[in-house]
Amino acid sequence: MNAQDLDEWIGNIASGDRQALSKAITLMESSRVSDRDLAAQMIRRLPPRSHPALRIGLTGPPGVGKSTLVEALGVYLTDRGERLAVLTVDPSSALSGGSILGDKTRMPELARRENAFIRPSPTGAYLGGTGRQTREAILLCEAAGYDIVLVETAGTGQNEYLVSTMTDITVLLGLPGAGDDLQGIKRGIMEWADVIVVHKADEPNDPRVREALRDLGAAAHFLEARPHGQPRRVVAVSALRGTGLEELWKAICAIREVLVEKNLLGALRAEQLVRAYRERLKADLLERLLGRREVASYLADREKELREGKISPEESVENTLAFIFAANSK
Amino acid sequence: MNAQDLDEWIGNIASGDRQALSKAITLMESSRVSDRDLAAQMIRRLPPRSHPALRIGLTGPPGVGKSTLVEALGVYLTDRGERLAVLTVDPSSALSGGSILGDKTRMPELARRENAFIRPSPTGAYLGGTGRQTREAILLCEAAGYDIVLVETAGTGQNEYLVSTMTDITVLLGLPGAGDDLQGIKRGIMEWADVIVVHKADEPNDPRVREALRDLGAAAHFLEARPHGQPRRVVAVSALRGTGLEELWKAICAIREVLVEKNLLGALRAEQLVRAYRERLKADLLERLLGRREVASYLADREKELREGKISPEESVENTLAFIFAANSK
Repeated sequence: MNAQDLDEWIGNIASGDRQALSKAITLMESSRVSDRDLAAQMIRRLPPRSHPALRIGLTGPPGVGKSTLVEALGVYLTDRGERLAVLTVDPSSALSGGSILGDKTRMPELARRENAFIRPSPTGAYLGGTGRQTREAILLCEAAGYDIVLVETAGTGQNEYLVSTMTDITVLLGLPGAGDDLQGIKRGIMEWADVIVVHKADEPNDPRVREALRDLGAAAHFLEARPHGQPRRVVAVSALRGTGLEELWKAICAIREVLVEKNLLGALRAEQLVRAYRERLKADLLERLLGRREVASYLADREKELREGKISPEESVENTLAFIFAANSK
Repeated sequence: MNAQDLDEWIGNIASGDRQALSKAITLMESSRVSDRDLAAQMIRRLPPRSHPALRIGLTGPPGVGKSTLVEALGVYLTDRGERLAVLTVDPSSALSGGSILGDKTRMPELARRENAFIRPSPTGAYLGGTGRQTREAILLCEAAGYDIVLVETAGTGQNEYLVSTMTDITVLLGLPGAGDDLQGIKRGIMEWADVIVVHKADEPNDPRVREALRDLGAAAHFLEARPHGQPRRVVAVSALRGTGLEELWKAICAIREVLVEKNLLGALRAEQLVRAYRERLKADLLERLLGRREVASYLADREKELREGKISPEESVENTLAFIFAANSK
């Protein structure tokens, strides 16, 4: 495919052709190197946007009602005239292989809207990866003119973190639990969240909801601050009853306002790319240096010595560095 | 110095000679390589202990009353017959150079006790380092037969983390603030704490103290769990009035009990050494590979490209790896 064909394809995407968009995302998910190279070329040729879309990540443990909330929030937003793209990354559906139809039936109302685009990532390419496909799919949805790109992913540790590194605002869902826990939320994950949703708050006066809101509000004060000082919000939502959607949207908009007012959106996104680059580079470098069989076995011996407690970590590091550089210069 | 002299020195330390202990710690803090080698030899020759001492880290921001609390807790413990060693690491006093006398006058009661040993680290060697000296000083205090080794350090981010990597139990101090904050505690640091002390709780019915206790208790539930499932505790203490010391000691003992019952103390300490080794090794490796001038300048160029948004982090990593290994094979 030549540059002219690519530009025509991009033109179709920009004019709102959802099938052209869908095919481009499929190209990015391809396992063929030639397809991936073409996709990279396409990304480089995408025209700049006059105003950035809002990138929202939505995550939470299985059973918390993510699809139901995306459907309800999506209908609320498209009713207000927003153009919304939803990318769903569901590691479990990759196993069953039927997630394309599955997602559309999980969001039947939203799937019928003209100004909505729903796209599952059925390949499971996301899991264990660096999120390249998802990052590129976001760029394509933006090129297609969507105002909001919402990335939904099941909460399995690494995915929750990854989604927060490629969106502007991360929404974390949990269920009101017995006592002062937010059911299903792994500890330590709240650090990455901008908005914490107490979901399935179906009974207006449920004391568990009130308690969860109060405790989460207090807890949010003790978490590491968000990187640009964005405020953290806690809201109760019932997708079933349609309550709390406006509060959720207001919370998201309040954070976006801080980002836009302080002119931080560009900086935040640039930082995300640079951080992804640095993290991946360091991980790959260490893997190459430490993953060699003779090095791995040398390390295992040093760790055994350390556990026995008669050598200091610093002495061990000195010896190990010498060994590794000798092994690599062979 | 030959092995026999070293063993005699160690014997003096073990028999309770505080000056011999003090001189050994000075040897470890020496900047001379021959002294450090001798110190390493001494560490290797220390006899194993029949029962392990309890290692407690105590940290918190300046002005929170750390010395006052150590003095009050120390008197409480020595009155109960415990033998207590206190290692204080105060980065600010390193500047004034007068911390040895300073520490003893800051803890006048405790300094007079026969079964207490107070030792400042006046060199500032700790700051920015890996904590080797402190780790070795702990081993020496244990060889001297102390039941409890308490390491006190001012809360300056890195120090708070370091102290939690070399002790069994970390105690974090803060002041009851206005609202639901714990004054002076940097967010994100509570993750490393086993016991959180609301200090200067001098008025029994101060609503700020009650509020801080309640909010911190709730917040503790949302923090990453401690590595071996030890419970987190929150207590209010007034060193001034002597209240809360027993609760604090009980909280520490409850955590120790979990560690001892589950037979985790040895595993926890071995893990700390291995983790210190791995972290330092990775940091040194990356520093050597990425710190070279031509590599640093190459990275800066790639990051500029990334910020401009037309290349993916993954493509950049591929190119960078090739560059680094080519540069290193020259």
